[in-house]
Amino acid sequence: MTIRYSRYSHNSEFSYCFGIYPIIDLLIKKPESAREIILSSKAEQSEGINKLVELAKNAKITVSYSNAQINRLTTNESVLAVGVFEKYNCELSGANNHLVLVNPSDMGNVGSIIRTSLGFNIRDIAIIKPGVDIFDPKVVRSSMGALFSMNIAYFDSFEDYIFSNDKNRTYYLFMTDGEVSLKKIEKVSPFSLIFGNEGEGLDPSYRQYGKTVYIPQSKEIDSLNLAMSVGIGLYEFTV
Amino acid sequence: MTIRYSRYSHNSEFSYCFGIYPIIDLLIKKPESAREIILSSKAEQSEGINKLVELAKNAKITVSYSNAQINRLTTNESVLAVGVFEKYNCELSGANNHLVLVNPSDMGNVGSIIRTSLGFNIRDIAIIKPGVDIFDPKVVRSSMGALFSMNIAYFDSFEDYIFSNDKNRTYYLFMTDGEVSLKKIEKVSPFSLIFGNEGEGLDPSYRQYGKTVYIPQSKEIDSLNLAMSVGIGLYEFTV
Repeated sequence: MTIRYSRYSHNSEFSYCFGIYPIIDLLIKKPESAREIILSSKAEQSEGINKLVELAKNAKITVSYSNAQINRLTTNESVLAVGVFEKYNCELSGANNHLVLVNPSDMGNVGSIIRTSLGFNIRDIAIIKPGVDIFDPKVVRSSMGALFSMNIAYFDSFEDYIFSNDKNRTYYLFMTDGEVSLKKIEKVSPFSLIFGNEGEGLDPSYRQYGKTVYIPQSKEIDSLNLAMSVGIGLYEFTV
Repeated sequence: MTIRYSRYSHNSEFSYCFGIYPIIDLLIKKPESAREIILSSKAEQSEGINKLVELAKNAKITVSYSNAQINRLTTNESVLAVGVFEKYNCELSGANNHLVLVNPSDMGNVGSIIRTSLGFNIRDIAIIKPGVDIFDPKVVRSSMGALFSMNIAYFDSFEDYIFSNDKNRTYYLFMTDGEVSLKKIEKVSPFSLIFGNEGEGLDPSYRQYGKTVYIPQSKEIDSLNLAMSVGIGLYEFTV
């Protein structure tokens, strides 16, 4: 029994994940949210397809074939499989280290950050609103399936985020004019690494919340891009 | 006197740089290569436009207005200025540290890497063929003007690149199964940081050329993306 799905919108109760390997991640990490798998008639000989079908069977998720559905959901003709999943809420773990993105606006950037964050074992991300919708298929795609291994929670304001945490957490605010070099800063866990948005960075008013950190860099560029700064911060704090 | 320009192709003798600030970088860093500036009629009130026009005047570069030319060169309607420049060759400095990209294929990635490399003061990049055309406007755009501050040279093979260098250079090969952690490796200058392409990384045969390095990361992802790996490597080696 297949529903006729329409393209994703922010108000949909479900979203879509494109491609065999990201769907495998969905079925392994969030099987309870998977709702249905739709395959293209060209998917049959694809690498990974047997594993996908077996995982779906074990989780009792319907697998159907429909080129028409896939064409309705994406203009990308190379997509062979769509995973439909229900959107879910996460809670951050108070014991874990966090990454905090204040008002991120670029979906590809956020997907790439999610994947990098998983790569450095930081699985808890706070997004301060307004910020991109992590369930938008563009974010899901650029995270390459990493989204399903993460706890990502939204907060109405940075104060709300702080209020939700224990008092013993250390906040590191990444600012191009921060006080201490990333190379020299003392790292105290549990920590939160906090980054502003792509264009503006963090407002000076954020200085009150913790230690300000800068990534030493040449004056020849305005600043590293957000995803790069986050990746370097995660590397230095976790490796 | 304005020529009728056509869209960029790899065989063109000149290329295009879109946007006021990247053109300012062109006029400051490579005035000898700038050939002509074309402005949209909407450019007049834009930020930076006076500086651009003054720099062009000092360098005796023609500035003309032509919406038709701009529309022919880009489909992006927000482009207010196009800098036409002659393509040029660079030589790497034997005394400097180098970044080496083996067969990079993604233009946006390479533009972003060029900018990050400038951010960490590594101005010499070797590209081992086949690799993206750095003068393609997509690369120029994603480097955000950084391209014009760099020395980027192509080599037919990695052996050709090594042959062009002095014997005292140390080669660091970034491989997911490298021998020494990036955090622990001894850094000896002048060095070359060598990265494989987006999909495959470096072939095991590269091990013979120097020290292999890995960036410690979780097994939950296949590997960090190329631009991220390069950024983290540059940070660790230069900061």
